[in-house]
Amino acid sequence: MSAGEKAGANAFAVGPGSRPEMHDALAAAVASAGGHLVPFEDAEVLVWDDPGAADDFPEIIRSCPKVKWVQLPWAGIEPFLPHLDHTHIWTSGKDVYSRPVAEWIVTALLTAFRDFHLFVGAKSWPLQSGRNLLGSSITVVGAGGITGSLIELLGPWDVNVTVVRRRGLPFDGAHRTLSSDRLTEAVSEADAVVVAAALTDATRGIINRHIFDAMRSDSWLINVARGAHVVVPDLEDALRSGSIAGAVLDVTDPEPLPDRHPLWAFDNCIITPHVGNTPEMGLPLLAERVANNTRNWLNGLPLAGVVDVDAGY
Amino acid sequence: MSAGEKAGANAFAVGPGSRPEMHDALAAAVASAGGHLVPFEDAEVLVWDDPGAADDFPEIIRSCPKVKWVQLPWAGIEPFLPHLDHTHIWTSGKDVYSRPVAEWIVTALLTAFRDFHLFVGAKSWPLQSGRNLLGSSITVVGAGGITGSLIELLGPWDVNVTVVRRRGLPFDGAHRTLSSDRLTEAVSEADAVVVAAALTDATRGIINRHIFDAMRSDSWLINVARGAHVVVPDLEDALRSGSIAGAVLDVTDPEPLPDRHPLWAFDNCIITPHVGNTPEMGLPLLAERVANNTRNWLNGLPLAGVVDVDAGY
Repeated sequence: MSAGEKAGANAFAVGPGSRPEMHDALAAAVASAGGHLVPFEDAEVLVWDDPGAADDFPEIIRSCPKVKWVQLPWAGIEPFLPHLDHTHIWTSGKDVYSRPVAEWIVTALLTAFRDFHLFVGAKSWPLQSGRNLLGSSITVVGAGGITGSLIELLGPWDVNVTVVRRRGLPFDGAHRTLSSDRLTEAVSEADAVVVAAALTDATRGIINRHIFDAMRSDSWLINVARGAHVVVPDLEDALRSGSIAGAVLDVTDPEPLPDRHPLWAFDNCIITPHVGNTPEMGLPLLAERVANNTRNWLNGLPLAGVVDVDAGY
Repeated sequence: MSAGEKAGANAFAVGPGSRPEMHDALAAAVASAGGHLVPFEDAEVLVWDDPGAADDFPEIIRSCPKVKWVQLPWAGIEPFLPHLDHTHIWTSGKDVYSRPVAEWIVTALLTAFRDFHLFVGAKSWPLQSGRNLLGSSITVVGAGGITGSLIELLGPWDVNVTVVRRRGLPFDGAHRTLSSDRLTEAVSEADAVVVAAALTDATRGIINRHIFDAMRSDSWLINVARGAHVVVPDLEDALRSGSIAGAVLDVTDPEPLPDRHPLWAFDNCIITPHVGNTPEMGLPLLAERVANNTRNWLNGLPLAGVVDVDAGY
C-alpha cells in the first residue's frame, strides 16, 4: 500500500484486539470488502472489536486523529455512551442480532405457554397442561429490529401483536401500535408482554407494579432487553402474589444475577444467562454487517446502524 | 322430525357419551351443520365421542344397523383398529390437530437447541450456551398433516427440512423427500430427527441403534408420534454414550412412563405427558372437523380424514 492510500477512506483500524477471535473475524470482514488495515494513527475508520473493553476506548480514540467513523460492536452500547460525540459518525450492531434474539423470544413464549418449565426435570409423569402460542395475543414494548424479526418469525402463527413505541407510529406487521403513554392499556389483554426496547431514561423501570396490576393473571413477562427496564421488587411481588403467571428473563439487574438473589427461588421465573444472542451466533452476523458497512463507506452509500448520539441508541 | 327423515342421511348418533364435555361439543357441531340427533338404532352416521372407550365400540356398533359412516375422534386410532371393516366408511381426526402438535415440535426443538432444559430450574447464573433453529437442518419421519403444519410454521425460519416417507414422493415445502429405505442417510446430517409418522407394522421400532449410530452426536431425537416407534433400550444406550445429544419425547412405551423408569434419570431426555395436542386445544378443532364433515356428508361431498382400512391409518 502506498503512502497516498493510507490517508484515504479505505484506511481501517480494527482494535483494540483484546479478543483475538472477534478481531480476526472483523479484520477479515473489512479486508474482504476492500478496506486496508492500517495502524490507529493512520485510520479514517475505527472498527472496535471488544465489547468488554470500553474503558480502553478514550485512550485509543485519542490515538486516531484521522478517524471519521467508529463502528461499535453489539447492539447495547451503554458502556460507550460517555464517549459518543458529534465529531464522529457512530454505528453499532443494532438490528444485526435481531433474528437470534427474536428466536429466543419465541423459545421463551413457547416454554411458558406449553409448560415446558414444568416438564423439564420431572421425575414422574406430569399432569397434562399447556396452551397455544398459535392464535394468542402478544404485546411488544419497543419497535426496533428485534420486534420486526419477531413479527416476521411468527408470520404463520396467527399471533395478534400489539407494539408499544414512543409516539405510536404504525409498525409494519403489527395488529396495532400504541404510544408509550398507553402501555397500561396495551398490556391488559395480552397473553404475554415482551420487553424489547432500548434502555433510556424514558424506559428505565417502565415495567413496574402498575403494569403487573394491569396484566392478566395468566400473562407472562418476557424480558430480552435490559434488566433495568423492570423494577425487580415489583416483579418479585407479582410473582409471589400470582398477579402474573410468570417471567422469562434473559437480562437481570444486577447482571449476572448473584447467587441467593430472591428471583432464583420462583418456579415461575425462568432465567437465562443473556443468550438472546451469543457470541457464536452473533459474530458471523456482525462480520457481515461490518463487511457491508465497509463496502457502503467506500462507495459513499449510507451506513447501517447509525447511532442517534442524542437519543443514546 | 318425521319418520321419513329418520331413515335419511341426516340421522346422526353421537356416543357413547361417557365424556360429557366432548359429547356436548360434538353433538352441537353436528346440529350446527344440519344433522339431526337420533338414537343409535336410527342413525346413519355414528360420531364416536370418547377416545378412551374403544372397548364399548363393538356392542354399540351392533346396535346401529343403519350406520354407513363412523367418525372416530383423535388422530391415533390404534384402539379401534380391530373393529375396522370394509362395510362402513371410517373417518378419524387425522390432520385436525396438526398445528398444535407442530407447535409442540417447535417448542421441543427450541428448548433443546437454545439449551432451555439447562436453564430451567437453575439456581445460579449458568454458562452461556445454545445454538439456532434458524438455518438448521431437520429430518422429519412421516408425511402427514403434522409435517405439513411444521413446514408451514417454520416457513420464515430458513430451516432445511428433509421428509422421509414410504415411497419418497415429493412433499410440499420440503427441501428433499427420501423413501423410508434411505432413513439412515436421511438422519446423518440433521440437527434433529423428528418422528411424526403413523404407527404401523412398518414403522414400529424404526428408530433404533442403527439410526442413533447414523445421527450426529450433537443431534436431537424428537418423538411426537408413538412411543413404539423408538426402541427404548437403544435410546438409553445412545443417551448414555453420547452418540446423540438428547431426546424430547411426548410419547413413551409404555405410556404413561412408570416411575423409576431409566429414561427419567437422563438430564438430556425431556419427557412431556402426551401434550402435543391436549383436549383443551383439540376439542374445538375436532368439533370444527365434525361440523365440516357433517356438512359434506349432507351435500354428498368428500369427507376429510378418511381412514385407509388396510393401511390402518
